[in-house]
Amino acid sequence: MITTVDSIRRNPARHRILTGDRPTGPLHLGHYFGTLQNRVELQRLGVDLFLVVADYQVLTDRDLADNLAEHAENLVLDYLAAGVDPDRATVFAHSAVPALNQLLVPFLSLVSVAELGRNPTVKDEIAHSGRATVSGLMFTYPVHQAADILFCKADLVPVGQDQLPHLETTRTVARRFNERYGAPVFPEPDALLSAAPLLLGTDGGKMSKSRGNAVPLGASEDETARLLRAATTDADRRITYDPEHRPGVAGLLQLAALCLDRTPEAVAEEVGDSGAAQLKKLVTEAVNEYFRPHRARRAELAADRGFLREVLRVGNERANAVAATTLAEVREVMGTV
Amino acid sequence: MITTVDSIRRNPARHRILTGDRPTGPLHLGHYFGTLQNRVELQRLGVDLFLVVADYQVLTDRDLADNLAEHAENLVLDYLAAGVDPDRATVFAHSAVPALNQLLVPFLSLVSVAELGRNPTVKDEIAHSGRATVSGLMFTYPVHQAADILFCKADLVPVGQDQLPHLETTRTVARRFNERYGAPVFPEPDALLSAAPLLLGTDGGKMSKSRGNAVPLGASEDETARLLRAATTDADRRITYDPEHRPGVAGLLQLAALCLDRTPEAVAEEVGDSGAAQLKKLVTEAVNEYFRPHRARRAELAADRGFLREVLRVGNERANAVAATTLAEVREVMGTV
Repeated sequence: MITTVDSIRRNPARHRILTGDRPTGPLHLGHYFGTLQNRVELQRLGVDLFLVVADYQVLTDRDLADNLAEHAENLVLDYLAAGVDPDRATVFAHSAVPALNQLLVPFLSLVSVAELGRNPTVKDEIAHSGRATVSGLMFTYPVHQAADILFCKADLVPVGQDQLPHLETTRTVARRFNERYGAPVFPEPDALLSAAPLLLGTDGGKMSKSRGNAVPLGASEDETARLLRAATTDADRRITYDPEHRPGVAGLLQLAALCLDRTPEAVAEEVGDSGAAQLKKLVTEAVNEYFRPHRARRAELAADRGFLREVLRVGNERANAVAATTLAEVREVMGTV
Repeated sequence: MITTVDSIRRNPARHRILTGDRPTGPLHLGHYFGTLQNRVELQRLGVDLFLVVADYQVLTDRDLADNLAEHAENLVLDYLAAGVDPDRATVFAHSAVPALNQLLVPFLSLVSVAELGRNPTVKDEIAHSGRATVSGLMFTYPVHQAADILFCKADLVPVGQDQLPHLETTRTVARRFNERYGAPVFPEPDALLSAAPLLLGTDGGKMSKSRGNAVPLGASEDETARLLRAATTDADRRITYDPEHRPGVAGLLQLAALCLDRTPEAVAEEVGDSGAAQLKKLVTEAVNEYFRPHRARRAELAADRGFLREVLRVGNERANAVAATTLAEVREVMGTV
């Protein structure tokens, strides 16, 4: 089943969500409007958030991971600055919860090699990785994701459209496990589709850490101005919202619209014939204004690295306790020792 | 590299061995002469034994596992009766050491799908399982074995000829991990080839739990007599050692030879023209005589199930501590959180 934040709002039953990020670099404005804001709203609605700093998963598409510990702390920083409450949410590092990986053993027995080979997300990842060989880790990735989601019995997982097949494996694994062992151990998690649009980057492509077209959440006001000034636009002085033909301009309009709580079309109208330079000025002001409180909280939190580490330590402890409880249940129904 | 007990005897440096059994039923005389005796000899030589009760691996080729806890206790019983010293060896259940499975994440990233698909042991297992589909667990089995072996940094693994390719994956994973992370974390374990012949069962085929042709270690003297009386032999009254053409007779001769510390040919000579019935009588006496002390120890140990569980509990604790140490090192060199 696919659900939305709106339907959770209408029926605020107790939910648990598993979501997270790979610590490969600073989060950016696209993450904020695409996922972070959503998570904070879900937290406000009483949803129990499990946020995984997916440090081990960094290996899925690269050999070596740099500065994982630093990136992980910065993720926690971005989460907290955005409003994640460490007293209510569980922020943990994947590598700090070793036991959850034991679920891989029964879970791998529940999917066939043919099913793994057919997974469209894995096929895509393989195509995009540009690698000659597919690693066993990439091939089994949907099963690792199932372990990450089901160890804490999350019943909701925020996904993009392109991640639906991943969740399908998790649902299949949960259903087959419960059937085989005759006990309702795992929920079949629903997909929580985000209403947020994909934010375009300063080059008109999808805003992404790896494309170098992103404005990091931690950027200063000057840096923000510099990055937005360098955005790819065009010579047409009349500003219109046309994502297909003017993606650079459209990205800037989207960003301004999100910060000003207006539509991109209304922002375009306001700029009118004043050209890209004026649009960039307007966007820069809107972003800097909107993120001023966020950045102030961020700076305060960033001054206390010990606190960030403590948030992770406490989250790791909680996640380990949850993993131990789930595994005890799994061993019980499987009859292992 | 391939090594033998003799070479360990000549050079009794400090070794650690990982080996074990799947708790699918009682061990039999074939296990005793094929592996148990060897383990006890290695223990005598000062080798550090890690014996895994591979309860989770039971899933590799079947859906449900029955009476795992009971079978596991009986494995411990057979080990101790054979002479495994619980104060020196670490006997643990796979399912009781969840953290060791975290090694699957980096290890799966070090082998390609093509390599997994080429593994001859996996191909064989798939062929023998008689299943229409290959599970992800069976496909990735060599990587699970690598995790089991390397979590305790075993440098020796007893293997049959048919298991050499499995160990090759473990060696590859250890070597690639050390190379990628620039630190000698894992040994490249050597194969320890057993000199013991495969014992034939009462039907002339390989003695095996699943073929119903085995004499369990825990059989009484009467049961032993009954099982051996039912062995498949032939009408030729002259007893000769001819494994190819008279496998049933040859199995009985091998068994008597092992118990009497003679050659099968010498035993055949002794029986001469007295026929299969006389041979069976001789074998039964030899087996019952040889295993009398073993069975006495076994009966004594079997009367105290609490002690068997305690041996497992202590072993599980030790194995968990070893896994935690190894994972701390792995996280350190990988730079995870």
